[in-house]
Amino acid sequence: MIRLLLIGIGTGNPDHLTRAATKAMNDADLILLPRKGDAKSDLIDLRRTICAQLLTGPTRIVEFDMPVRAAEPAYLDAVTGWHDAIAGLWMEQAALHLPDGGTMALLVWGDPSLYDSSLRIAARLGPKVDIRVIPGITSIQALTAAHGICLNRLAEPVLITTGRRLREQGWPPGVNDIVVMLDGHCAFRDLPPQDMLIWWGAYLGMDCEELARGPLGEVGPAIVERRAALRARHGWIMDVYLLRRAPAAFN
Amino acid sequence: MIRLLLIGIGTGNPDHLTRAATKAMNDADLILLPRKGDAKSDLIDLRRTICAQLLTGPTRIVEFDMPVRAAEPAYLDAVTGWHDAIAGLWMEQAALHLPDGGTMALLVWGDPSLYDSSLRIAARLGPKVDIRVIPGITSIQALTAAHGICLNRLAEPVLITTGRRLREQGWPPGVNDIVVMLDGHCAFRDLPPQDMLIWWGAYLGMDCEELARGPLGEVGPAIVERRAALRARHGWIMDVYLLRRAPAAFN
Ligand SMILES: C[S@@+](CC[C@H](N)C(=O)[O-])C[C@H]1O[C@@H](n2cnc3c(N)ncnc32)[C@H](O)[C@@H]1O
Ligand SMILES: C[S@@+](CC[C@H](N)C(=O)[O-])C[C@H]1O[C@@H](n2cnc3c(N)ncnc32)[C@H](O)[C@@H]1O
Repeated sequence: MIRLLLIGIGTGNPDHLTRAATKAMNDADLILLPRKGDAKSDLIDLRRTICAQLLTGPTRIVEFDMPVRAAEPAYLDAVTGWHDAIAGLWMEQAALHLPDGGTMALLVWGDPSLYDSSLRIAARLGPKVDIRVIPGITSIQALTAAHGICLNRLAEPVLITTGRRLREQGWPPGVNDIVVMLDGHCAFRDLPPQDMLIWWGAYLGMDCEELARGPLGEVGPAIVERRAALRARHGWIMDVYLLRRAPAAFN
Repeated sequence: MIRLLLIGIGTGNPDHLTRAATKAMNDADLILLPRKGDAKSDLIDLRRTICAQLLTGPTRIVEFDMPVRAAEPAYLDAVTGWHDAIAGLWMEQAALHLPDGGTMALLVWGDPSLYDSSLRIAARLGPKVDIRVIPGITSIQALTAAHGICLNRLAEPVLITTGRRLREQGWPPGVNDIVVMLDGHCAFRDLPPQDMLIWWGAYLGMDCEELARGPLGEVGPAIVERRAALRARHGWIMDVYLLRRAPAAFN
């Protein structure tokens, strides 16, 4: 019997880990640290640091290489095959290091429920694997905390969406406040900037955190340039932003 | 000079506090614990427990009574006046206990950015108060973690909205997945139940946590009954749910 813990670790600040996450890490017999290639080595380094800081017992840490995602034209097919491959690797590691069963953990960026595939991959493991999720601080919360702002306006809804979707479908109907994640292409550039404010953050929670805020028409172009420069400097970037329409109605 | 820390404490499980939250509590000279009347005394008890468990230094804890919200017909006016009154009370406590300045903290339920007024109240304190936000696990994350589910479907958006809004405006346009908060009246009852799934949770993170899930048509009526019984038993209830439309497209 294998127990799988999906532990949310927040988005870069080891102090964002909860006590439940720390306990779960120490409850695990085995922590798997996937290596995703050179470009994002900062991210595995951070996980190594978290393990070094927080593990107090005999938990074993095993690193393994993630499979490369096939660059198939059909995005969803490529993702499905990739998830199958990762599920296979997890079980390989379990068979290797926990032949008599035990508790295996993965340190999931942010919160495991938000635009993360660990739960979808875990669903492939079958009924003999018992799955538990430990929540973590999301990049959305890191963004709002860093800016000292509310996510929603008083009694108003908020949409969480992706850069791809904003690019393909434009401003979504029925909302004035949206959070955009997974946006490699600054989808906000295609929006009419009038009456629009943006709160942007990159590397949130990390030492190299970057923030910008203001009217989209003023700060938007600067964010595009800064993002490109940061990406070149670090070799990777993760950023997220909140857009609010119609500032007249702010509250 | 007053520093105000708005510390997210999660939604009932002291283990959901982050290391940053614990550090911030201990950095504070003063923690204010608002009393909200008898019905929700569980919630102040929990904050007392968190203080007892996590404070290691000389931080002083002060309880004060929250003003009662005027039952004005104009909801937004009532809220505005109420926020003014609370801001006044905070500053009174600061003047009383930190006459020479210092760090004052509030323990905010869940995350301070999500349907919480602390930041709006803090905005009334003027430029001499320096505000810092420490993120916390939201009830949404407590819900998805307890059910072991993703918030979003693969590459799809999610809307966070309120019971009032769902009741007044029906299913929102452009999304198939919504989280409903602040719903005292089971707004899901008015939705067409076919092809709709619900994941529901009350008292999330607490010992008395309650969960339900399934096709809305089947479990919806049971949730309505259970909610009423729980509310009668505890004297209060907080619940949140995720609705997904068109299960055929699940992924
Ligand atoms: C695959 S999703 C994972 C999200 C994660 N599970 C969470 O809870 O935030 C990756 C996206 O999250 C956002 N993100 C994650 N970490 C971030 C960080 N430290 N700073 C800014 N954005 C971040 C970016 O939008 C990025 O494209
Ligand atoms: C005023 S809002 C505060 C939300 C909080 N800031 C958060 O991050 O979750 C209160 C609403 O949050 C949800 N909620 C808060 N705590 C909860 C809990 N322990 N269980 C279920 N729902 C909860 C309910 O929808 C409730 O009506």
